[in-house]
Amino acid sequence: MADESSPPDWVRALKPAGPQGSEILKQERAASNVNVDQLTSFLFGKEALDRKRDVLKILQGEPIFEKSQDYFEGRFEKFERALGRAKKLRQLTVKHNWSQEESRVANDLISEPLPYGLHEGMYLKTLRDQGTPEQHEKFLKPAEAYQHIGCYAQTELGHGSNVRGLETLAIWNKEDQTFTIHSPHLTSSKWWIGSLGKTANHASVMAQLIIDGKPYGPHPFVVQIRDLKTHKLLPNVYAGDIGPKFGYNTMDNGFLLFNKVKIPHGNMLARYSAVDPKTNKYIKPSSPTLVYGTLTWVRSTIVLQSGSVLARGVTIATRYLAVRRQFQDRDAPEWQKGENQTLNYTMVQIRLLPLLATCFALHYTGKGMMALYEANQKKMSASKRSVGQEQTIRGAGPEETQSGSDLLADLHGTSCGLKSLCSHTAVEGLEMCRRAMGGHGYSAFSGVGHWFLDYAPTATWEGDNYMLTQQVARYLLKSARTVLKGNEPNNDTTEILAYYLKRQDVGAAFDILGKDEDIVAAYAWRSAYFTFEALKQRDELKQSWNSLLVQFWKLSRAHSQYLVVKNFYETIHSNEISQELDPETLALQHKLFRLYSLYTLESESSEFFTSSACTVAQIRLARTRAVMQLLEEIRPHAIRLVDSWDFPDWQLNSSLGRYDGKVYEDMFYRASELNPLNKVMADPYPDSAVLFKGRENPQLKGKL
Amino acid sequence: MADESSPPDWVRALKPAGPQGSEILKQERAASNVNVDQLTSFLFGKEALDRKRDVLKILQGEPIFEKSQDYFEGRFEKFERALGRAKKLRQLTVKHNWSQEESRVANDLISEPLPYGLHEGMYLKTLRDQGTPEQHEKFLKPAEAYQHIGCYAQTELGHGSNVRGLETLAIWNKEDQTFTIHSPHLTSSKWWIGSLGKTANHASVMAQLIIDGKPYGPHPFVVQIRDLKTHKLLPNVYAGDIGPKFGYNTMDNGFLLFNKVKIPHGNMLARYSAVDPKTNKYIKPSSPTLVYGTLTWVRSTIVLQSGSVLARGVTIATRYLAVRRQFQDRDAPEWQKGENQTLNYTMVQIRLLPLLATCFALHYTGKGMMALYEANQKKMSASKRSVGQEQTIRGAGPEETQSGSDLLADLHGTSCGLKSLCSHTAVEGLEMCRRAMGGHGYSAFSGVGHWFLDYAPTATWEGDNYMLTQQVARYLLKSARTVLKGNEPNNDTTEILAYYLKRQDVGAAFDILGKDEDIVAAYAWRSAYFTFEALKQRDELKQSWNSLLVQFWKLSRAHSQYLVVKNFYETIHSNEISQELDPETLALQHKLFRLYSLYTLESESSEFFTSSACTVAQIRLARTRAVMQLLEEIRPHAIRLVDSWDFPDWQLNSSLGRYDGKVYEDMFYRASELNPLNKVMADPYPDSAVLFKGRENPQLKGKL
Repeated sequence: MADESSPPDWVRALKPAGPQGSEILKQERAASNVNVDQLTSFLFGKEALDRKRDVLKILQGEPIFEKSQDYFEGRFEKFERALGRAKKLRQLTVKHNWSQEESRVANDLISEPLPYGLHEGMYLKTLRDQGTPEQHEKFLKPAEAYQHIGCYAQTELGHGSNVRGLETLAIWNKEDQTFTIHSPHLTSSKWWIGSLGKTANHASVMAQLIIDGKPYGPHPFVVQIRDLKTHKLLPNVYAGDIGPKFGYNTMDNGFLLFNKVKIPHGNMLARYSAVDPKTNKYIKPSSPTLVYGTLTWVRSTIVLQSGSVLARGVTIATRYLAVRRQFQDRDAPEWQKGENQTLNYTMVQIRLLPLLATCFALHYTGKGMMALYEANQKKMSASKRSVGQEQTIRGAGPEETQSGSDLLADLHGTSCGLKSLCSHTAVEGLEMCRRAMGGHGYSAFSGVGHWFLDYAPTATWEGDNYMLTQQVARYLLKSARTVLKGNEPNNDTTEILAYYLKRQDVGAAFDILGKDEDIVAAYAWRSAYFTFEALKQRDELKQSWNSLLVQFWKLSRAHSQYLVVKNFYETIHSNEISQELDPETLALQHKLFRLYSLYTLESESSEFFTSSACTVAQIRLARTRAVMQLLEEIRPHAIRLVDSWDFPDWQLNSSLGRYDGKVYEDMFYRASELNPLNKVMADPYPDSAVLFKGRENPQLKGKL
Repeated sequence: MADESSPPDWVRALKPAGPQGSEILKQERAASNVNVDQLTSFLFGKEALDRKRDVLKILQGEPIFEKSQDYFEGRFEKFERALGRAKKLRQLTVKHNWSQEESRVANDLISEPLPYGLHEGMYLKTLRDQGTPEQHEKFLKPAEAYQHIGCYAQTELGHGSNVRGLETLAIWNKEDQTFTIHSPHLTSSKWWIGSLGKTANHASVMAQLIIDGKPYGPHPFVVQIRDLKTHKLLPNVYAGDIGPKFGYNTMDNGFLLFNKVKIPHGNMLARYSAVDPKTNKYIKPSSPTLVYGTLTWVRSTIVLQSGSVLARGVTIATRYLAVRRQFQDRDAPEWQKGENQTLNYTMVQIRLLPLLATCFALHYTGKGMMALYEANQKKMSASKRSVGQEQTIRGAGPEETQSGSDLLADLHGTSCGLKSLCSHTAVEGLEMCRRAMGGHGYSAFSGVGHWFLDYAPTATWEGDNYMLTQQVARYLLKSARTVLKGNEPNNDTTEILAYYLKRQDVGAAFDILGKDEDIVAAYAWRSAYFTFEALKQRDELKQSWNSLLVQFWKLSRAHSQYLVVKNFYETIHSNEISQELDPETLALQHKLFRLYSLYTLESESSEFFTSSACTVAQIRLARTRAVMQLLEEIRPHAIRLVDSWDFPDWQLNSSLGRYDGKVYEDMFYRASELNPLNKVMADPYPDSAVLFKGRENPQLKGKL
């Protein structure tokens, strides 16, 4: 039955044609003076790097985390193994008494969604945030001990973004002081719920609270769904895995239906709102202000991670395209003939190096976003703001609900816009990296394809990237109205709007090619211009909201790009960076700033024209001179720059992105020695009903 | 062991919340007067539609083509089943005496790459085109009888685009009049070769011909690689499957190495060039002109298919987004409150309806491209042009090799540019469709994800989409030089260049919003402007080729978009269409033309400004008025327009794209009843080494 599974000696003796990938990467590293360690420390901090090394060592010691078969497995085996990994990870966490941060690092290194993910990420968090002390005792404790394994059941088959449209009911029974949890329609089936499909025995269910026939909107209820011993579904509960997906197949996203399941009064998470069992009345949250807290934190995390997410693809592509050689440079003199590294072609550089710059831009923006979030948390707890339900802001609630404090509104607008822009940029960028690698980018062994597939839903969850832009527009319109009223600017947004108003009759004259601060100012100008344009459409011309959605989306992008450029600018002009990086390494950061912002400016050039933030001539020069020159200047440092993102090979699991450049050796090894398909022999003839010799497939029996 | 595999009665009784998807699609169809049958006939021809019905019926009668488990399978099972399908398809082809066209239709309906694909597509074709009559007897006959199953082994681990860099050697041994086929390095391993991994027993191997130590470039050699009886690899041959990929996992793309394998003189395919065994001299092809033939045909096919490829995603997304309802229109009056179809939101329309228009644009362009190809073939055979090797034009050969006849050069330039643009557009568009569907778009049951993954390599093969743009630029530069010399225009390209030259001092004044022919003219103007810009850089300013690659890529896109707009324009102004379509249906085609061309114009607006093909005001009006109005006008007809692409549900294999709108029912059915993961029960606790109850997994044993 064995076919060609193990290579004969004459194959083992073969080497790639020279120069070897390993030599090429050595030369690349020798030719640049970027201080990798310094830059890595600046990006992540020394402490985090040490933590990563320690955790990595422990993971590498466990056979279940060995990744060599990951790319070969089907959905079923993928999930089974992932469940094993989740268990082992939990065991290690207990054994080594890992902090939350250490667990996060372990998850990062393992790099696949695991079945306890939503238990840890959302079930525990919901209980903590929304449970009373008694509920902590009853639900949180066993959940922290993994006796209860839970999930967060919000989205339904028929409703995602519009949380207020959820169909699942929680009907208050005053007779016996219980709630009846019920799914009235097929579309009310919970759907996409991570950790629910096979793993969870509890769910935090978002359901429409009904008292005396009157609806009070979605609230969270803890419902046990499977037996703690047998793991069988409880009566009148129907749940399972929703099936294979584009990616994320190591997670058991599930469905869940209830047929009039009764739960006690104490299962409604009651920290903020509740039903008074004596009066049968609804107890409102102490403050009607929406919580921006949790979701803002989740979005800020997405922004923070987007740089590294993208850097992973950029690291792989940059290393491979330095090793890959193809064609001669047609203008090279005869004596220099020999194949050129593909990374030397400008058509490759223009796809890859702006993305490399983008990694830094997103990372610094994420750090800025986190700092803003934390500053806000401090002020919040100082002013003891109360919190309530958060669900409505996932989608686009009415304009009027946005009347929280200015601080919150700013944080909310910023996090929505940046989540949308940064996750979109990372998704698109990863696919760009994969394609830039040509044929081999399509192999699973490139390591980019599956990463893209697993990351892709980030563009949809925690606020769909298109939907969110309405929140940003709403915030900007509101800010513009304040400025128009003559109120003093009280944050950066109102400042750039006020500046624009003051200057609009004089016009802009930004020296984008000469001064970095003018680049930032040009982005600010464009954002302000389109804000007032949109405001005019809405308030003066009374255009319908629906007719303005495309404008709002563009406006959100414009404003968020301004925020990214501003964060990058501020980072490279900070005291911190000039203390931590040597002048050459810092100078290169400065070039990356210019590459990101001028390349993006050129890509969006029509908006910069239209708003008169730049002239046509400036854009042309940016395109034909500045960007091309920056590519040339950054190119020699590309390998060291990606090295500074510090991805261990174990994490990348990529033939093409290997640190040592042994690209072809690894491709060949995986194909010839790890591939299960090479352990069987086919019968190739059309008239034979045998497919693989010596193997019967009951699924296909009698069908040929 | 069974978990929740089959839904209980109370679940079976559930229906989606109303209005039902089936009602919605009925209403949609009732509200439009597009004549679907007429339009379908116009797109594909009556004959082709009948053929499709007949073939579909036969396929549906064969259990092996039943698709319900396709999305659940892993690589191994996917391939095994695909081999079974390939065999059955071959059996049916023989049984029903299917023509090539009927087989193609069957493949389309099955919609997955099958293991005989490259035997049929490339091995047979290479033998036919490049074999002598004796070789036809010896190799083609048994191959046509499926005794030999072959593949086309060109690409190597180290070389793809640069065919002249192939490393595999074919050394002529004058002593015994044989060739030694040899792989000197690991990188010379053949790689990506479809049908090779498990299926083929023969290969047509492209190898560097060496005579007396002197290289003569790559030539095709037939080499047997596996035993015809045992299917074992022959001595000194090492081959296998290259492993899992982003998509295309039903195909056994393979690797192949040779250790000094001797083959007879007669195994070099010798129709055009050969080694004279008497003189030991190389016999050159009768004409050094490159073959544009085969590859041009392949590229034209890609252009032709791109419309349907994209239409498949657009069909699914349009139907689903009409059924999907989410949020209320915030400006709707109170009495109209109720959730809005997502297809009514302009942010959804702007993503989907221009793509719908694009399907028609690409389809008409493909038909135009095919007509051009066929006209050329006629002229070619009339003038008895001889043909030779084709390999060099896959990549970017030197400028000088482009000196074929003008006719060929035009065909070549057009097919390269359109292949690049149209396949890129389809790849991007499919992913756009998937994302527009939000969460459910991520489910395998959407049917779009796997289709995107399988189609994605089209952007790389038959000329990488970026590489090809150099060919287009080269052709345009050459044409521009001719025009500058004062030669009379002899084709459309030289005509638009000459027109631009004549008018450039007067400037353009195209009424793009008023006259359709002016839209075409504006696209032509932009293409000509950037052609002369590039020419100046290259010829006057002596810029290096490498430094111009990005400009060339943009130039190719500009010119190819002109071709698409022109083809669309010509189609809707043809006699044929006005005879076949009723006035309303035709009027809608006209709107689709305007939507495609104005939307694209706006997306590329900076190039239209820069070239002065349009004014800033025109672009602004196109964006804010014309495009938005067209969306509104086309929206009511969206369902009927996608119906006209005539995809049977069996082909789409999509819950979301069902013709009857039963989206949620089908999602639920597949998840709950077809999903193998729901046939097992997990043990969820971290301290238990059991993963699925009652199942032992030897792979994971001892690892927990």
